[in-house]
Amino acid sequence: CLLAGSAMAQSNVTVQGLVDVYAGSVKFSGDNGARSSVNSGGMTTSWLGFKGVEDLGGGLKAEFALTSFLQADTGASGRFFGDTMFSRDANVALSGSFGRVSIGRDLAPNFLPTVIFNPFGDSFSFSPLVLHTWVPSGDFGKRTWANSAAGDSGWSNEIIYSTPDINGLSANFHYQFGEKAGDTGSKNLGFNAMYFSGPLALSTYYHQVQVGNPTPGAIVDATAAPVNFAAINNQKSFFVGASYDLTVAKLYATYSKNKNDTAVAKSMDDKTYTLGAKIPAGGGDILASFASTKRSGDLVGAELKRDTFSAGYDYNLSKRTDVYALVMSDKLSTADRANSVAAGIRHKF
Amino acid sequence: CLLAGSAMAQSNVTVQGLVDVYAGSVKFSGDNGARSSVNSGGMTTSWLGFKGVEDLGGGLKAEFALTSFLQADTGASGRFFGDTMFSRDANVALSGSFGRVSIGRDLAPNFLPTVIFNPFGDSFSFSPLVLHTWVPSGDFGKRTWANSAAGDSGWSNEIIYSTPDINGLSANFHYQFGEKAGDTGSKNLGFNAMYFSGPLALSTYYHQVQVGNPTPGAIVDATAAPVNFAAINNQKSFFVGASYDLTVAKLYATYSKNKNDTAVAKSMDDKTYTLGAKIPAGGGDILASFASTKRSGDLVGAELKRDTFSAGYDYNLSKRTDVYALVMSDKLSTADRANSVAAGIRHKF
Amino acid sequence: CLLAGSAMAQSNVTVQGLVDVYAGSVKFSGDNGARSSVNSGGMTTSWLGFKGVEDLGGGLKAEFALTSFLQADTGASGRFFGDTMFSRDANVALSGSFGRVSIGRDLAPNFLPTVIFNPFGDSFSFSPLVLHTWVPSGDFGKRTWANSAAGDSGWSNEIIYSTPDINGLSANFHYQFGEKAGDTGSKNLGFNAMYFSGPLALSTYYHQVQVGNPTPGAIVDATAAPVNFAAINNQKSFFVGASYDLTVAKLYATYSKNKNDTAVAKSMDDKTYTLGAKIPAGGGDILASFASTKRSGDLVGAELKRDTFSAGYDYNLSKRTDVYALVMSDKLSTADRANSVAAGIRHKF
Repeated sequence: CLLAGSAMAQSNVTVQGLVDVYAGSVKFSGDNGARSSVNSGGMTTSWLGFKGVEDLGGGLKAEFALTSFLQADTGASGRFFGDTMFSRDANVALSGSFGRVSIGRDLAPNFLPTVIFNPFGDSFSFSPLVLHTWVPSGDFGKRTWANSAAGDSGWSNEIIYSTPDINGLSANFHYQFGEKAGDTGSKNLGFNAMYFSGPLALSTYYHQVQVGNPTPGAIVDATAAPVNFAAINNQKSFFVGASYDLTVAKLYATYSKNKNDTAVAKSMDDKTYTLGAKIPAGGGDILASFASTKRSGDLVGAELKRDTFSAGYDYNLSKRTDVYALVMSDKLSTADRANSVAAGIRHKF
Repeated sequence: CLLAGSAMAQSNVTVQGLVDVYAGSVKFSGDNGARSSVNSGGMTTSWLGFKGVEDLGGGLKAEFALTSFLQADTGASGRFFGDTMFSRDANVALSGSFGRVSIGRDLAPNFLPTVIFNPFGDSFSFSPLVLHTWVPSGDFGKRTWANSAAGDSGWSNEIIYSTPDINGLSANFHYQFGEKAGDTGSKNLGFNAMYFSGPLALSTYYHQVQVGNPTPGAIVDATAAPVNFAAINNQKSFFVGASYDLTVAKLYATYSKNKNDTAVAKSMDDKTYTLGAKIPAGGGDILASFASTKRSGDLVGAELKRDTFSAGYDYNLSKRTDVYALVMSDKLSTADRANSVAAGIRHKF
Repeated sequence: CLLAGSAMAQSNVTVQGLVDVYAGSVKFSGDNGARSSVNSGGMTTSWLGFKGVEDLGGGLKAEFALTSFLQADTGASGRFFGDTMFSRDANVALSGSFGRVSIGRDLAPNFLPTVIFNPFGDSFSFSPLVLHTWVPSGDFGKRTWANSAAGDSGWSNEIIYSTPDINGLSANFHYQFGEKAGDTGSKNLGFNAMYFSGPLALSTYYHQVQVGNPTPGAIVDATAAPVNFAAINNQKSFFVGASYDLTVAKLYATYSKNKNDTAVAKSMDDKTYTLGAKIPAGGGDILASFASTKRSGDLVGAELKRDTFSAGYDYNLSKRTDVYALVMSDKLSTADRANSVAAGIRHKF
């Protein structure tokens, strides 16, 4: 076995990751019943990976990251069946005073604003904003609700230019090649900007998505009924978010809008707002967040609505390990309210 | 490359594993012919993984393990096509004076008693007890003999509580969630207990299996003919094992019983006994083991029988590396006796 | 995270790898159009892996390697869909004064002579020799040109004996088991030899391939039309290569011949020659190489020809990181000339 010191210089590679597993009863609105489960990723999607930074001199650095999502409940690799091994990160970058250029598979422009501007962070299981943005409800092939954001939270075949931080303001410009023979029109592009100043933080993103991820395919969800979300082939998305830290509580608010065009001459619009709070208490944080999405357009017929509320307590056993207990309530306008409870542990390494 | 010292403190991650490869001629009773092969895992299934322990203070520790089986003859991941990436371990645990609670994918209750109480350990290639317990004979879809134990040697979606060691006695309690919507009745559960006192060791396990692993599916083997093992949907299994170290030889004996119910109102019972010996000689060990299983019940018709005998010599080149040579003889009551020979190398890191 | 020093002794495991990503416009002769892309492996196929060496005393060493190819543009594991996880290396070896014996998945005999005796090394994207040898053109199932070498650049189920280096001369003998029940006739075998003396280097290889890799299947390409390459079931291949370093330029030349027999009583012969040069300039190297293959035999009908030329500049940012810009021109006798351009970065760790 390899036992390595944690405070050494001259390293080429760091092995990093996170295992987050919870037990609970999970039911989304529209599900046939609650599911008593051990699941992976209650607060953060479990992952494992390899990173490194090389100092090239003159302020220039080469960096790489190869990181994998994993499902610690079954040991499966990736976030879902068919995900790529290194879908979390597979990229190499050069950084310097000019900023940073990354090439490979990397974040989508909507990732950082979404996970930074809600109190549940990157919880793909219980964050109302993250659920509405990226996680479809219902079984594969029989979705009861499609995620709002097209084209995944990470993009393949991508080049990112990141500006330096200028007085708390920074921006990232993303471009994904469509890689179709003889066609340079099909592509994904977008940007985000974030501003941090004392207790205040602001964020925005915009993207236009035409290309599926992590490998070619439908950009929203491969579901044809009851709504043919798989027909969506072009999405324009816009988001603003803000947070303010009052010390006794950190407050969050976001608003986003997704306009979807399809191959069947119909459209779909999603409008989502969220509110949230993180309240330090007893060595941990009380977390609460609400998200509401209105879905309209002739692709879906009558307007649909989804409301999701989550609340919980996250207690730090150490800087690397925390335990949490959560409740969630989810309601589609077309189905009964459904409630979930969960308790879990998250360990970083 | 990362060169890391092996004797450092403050480590967050250890990289560990084992590569075991052998060349030989392998034939199980019922096979059409012998197969000249280079195969992986003659003595131990090859694996690679990442583990860590964090001291949380007050005797409390957080631990994680992410480990993968692999086939070093082809480079394939997992034990078989469709196995999950981290099917060996994908779990996080808290341990302290109360014992240890693990959550995620981890051992099944039958694993430790089976591999500790036979001289070939966890050899899924040549240990008679391990072969009868977990390894089906014949090609996929055309099995000539189904393994006795249902639900894999590791369980997904699992919680394990392990007692502290009390005067040599310890026990592990296992529960796997069935994860069916609206159904909490479908599950796996079991326990094992082990007692170590000087030269004597004793063990027992019990399990009830209703859920397939590593992902949902048949709990025994997806074979429909000549015997519809795939119809088995509930197994109760009981085992006792003992070993005694006479210094000139360590002797092993086990007895186990598996009662299987099916979806087609038929049943199948397996009764297995094994005897074994490990004899230190010349810097290594002479190994010998015999397993005999009787299979009865209206699912199989006339009673079937399987006898398997293995013998070999395992020589230590170092604490981390050994070489071995083995012979095996396998006999089904319905097919001719078949013999195998193998020589291999096992390297731990 | 694991931060490890790079200059430590007593290590059991090293974590190594390489990420190489480029952006460009790629078109092979016969393709429908150019593809604007971010791709992995412009100069070297990206990989990640684990290696270790144990000193057993008396000059004897145990070594292991578990290394994976990966596609850093999508994060996919392997070189192609269906590749095994550790297709680059999954082996254990004993080495000493007698040479070295390796067992598991490892290099094919044609690998080292091919990648050492051309200026683009192991570039599976732009080296004319490597492209002609191993990389088919056209989409899967609709190949416009099949690779010349059968049975992959690595072999599964393999034993390699490597001689010690004797005055610059060394050789490797390779044997892959066919692993068919009751059949020891189906196999791969081959050898290579290399000689290094001052500025001069010479190489040769021979192989006979009957077994597909990394797992059983067609030995050349699973394409049935316009040419039924999948019918090829036996290939004999012969190669000679030389390089001479004039200091101002290193010159390369190779000649190879592949004779293919099929299950349909037709045959196919490939004859390939290449010329190349590497010219040190300005902290990097100017690279240029040309490969020409003539393909004949009643399997293909009228003789076919393929010419490929690549040129570029590879600049070293450090010993571990280089950037490169390349052009390539490819011409099949049956299709129009096609040109490619690419710029990328390669980072070793």
